[in-house]
Amino acid sequence: MSKRGLLIVLSGPSGAGKGTLCNLLLQRRPELVLSVSVTTRPPRPGEVHGVNYYFTDVENFERMIEKGEFLEWAKVYNNYYGTPKKFVEEQLQQGKDIILEIDIQGARQVKENCPDAVFIFILPPDIEELKNRIKKRGSETKESFDLRIKSAEEELKAVSDYDYAVVNDDLEEAVKKLESIIIAEKCKVIRNKDLLHCACKEGIKL
Amino acid sequence: MSKRGLLIVLSGPSGAGKGTLCNLLLQRRPELVLSVSVTTRPPRPGEVHGVNYYFTDVENFERMIEKGEFLEWAKVYNNYYGTPKKFVEEQLQQGKDIILEIDIQGARQVKENCPDAVFIFILPPDIEELKNRIKKRGSETKESFDLRIKSAEEELKAVSDYDYAVVNDDLEEAVKKLESIIIAEKCKVIRNKDLLHCACKEGIKL
Repeated sequence: MSKRGLLIVLSGPSGAGKGTLCNLLLQRRPELVLSVSVTTRPPRPGEVHGVNYYFTDVENFERMIEKGEFLEWAKVYNNYYGTPKKFVEEQLQQGKDIILEIDIQGARQVKENCPDAVFIFILPPDIEELKNRIKKRGSETKESFDLRIKSAEEELKAVSDYDYAVVNDDLEEAVKKLESIIIAEKCKVIRNKDLLHCACKEGIKL
Repeated sequence: MSKRGLLIVLSGPSGAGKGTLCNLLLQRRPELVLSVSVTTRPPRPGEVHGVNYYFTDVENFERMIEKGEFLEWAKVYNNYYGTPKKFVEEQLQQGKDIILEIDIQGARQVKENCPDAVFIFILPPDIEELKNRIKKRGSETKESFDLRIKSAEEELKAVSDYDYAVVNDDLEEAVKKLESIIIAEKCKVIRNKDLLHCACKEGIKL
């Protein structure tokens, strides 16, 4: 299979529920590959190294930045997060579709580096609901809570830079939309130019 | 509901099976509205006026052209076919998604008049299969058969002007792709600008 895979960027404000959505999507479509980020933030309870994140220290992370080993990286709430470039490129070349579940700063860099990626913005059903979800996460101080809310409101405006917006109201509905977006993107003529050209010229079986 | 509906153009070479696909799509998604074309060609057995086509005479059709009452029209194999503009516009304004199942000449005109429509090209799985399907249709003379084959080969090249290409190999698979394209298009940020702007600014429920 020579066809290049899709790079799918799932992003949105903190607390929009993109992690939950992403997990459900991966259950439904096990052929999708999740890109695992590198981070300097300490693991939350239950998080596993190499599954949720590659946990590393600041020194190592900054060395990787210098070497240009990230597709994107960002410093959020004093922690570094980054997507290792090599892994993503390998998957795409093998024709595999890869999901990046990243924050908005990161998505901006991916857009600069990979304009042919698919950018999907996950929206909370409303701002009140967003606050509730951030509250429920529980691990926040009052100060970091206020910072997150303000930042989320700011981040919502970034939606205009994305290809698609999916409201995370009904989880089933939202996952179905993500699946549909992936199927549709694979049907795009612009992503199948070589294949279609061959088929129309030579009359080969598609 | 103030959101404008989608105009979905299903096109492709004669014999690619777009009619069958379109019927199955309408069964699956009864909320879709099929635009019924006006034609001057005589009804085939089983075709019903007002369901498959509005059958009319050349004189009336040409009067409608003069009055600018068509979204697109074309003369194919000495018969006129056209899509009445008013009906389509009414449906879209009511927020309904409307399907045009039309030939490639017609699709070209719709693209000029409605650049925000969704253009889907239905491809036969291979050229041999296309010939078989045209043959099976049975109602053709040798001359019109040769004309159809040549025209179909020519028409295949038009795929590059379309947004999506769907290969009509497995009918179930192809319908699923059409459904996904419609769902995905409805998630496009560019089609939801006003709604998203409001939601992000005012924090209203989406």
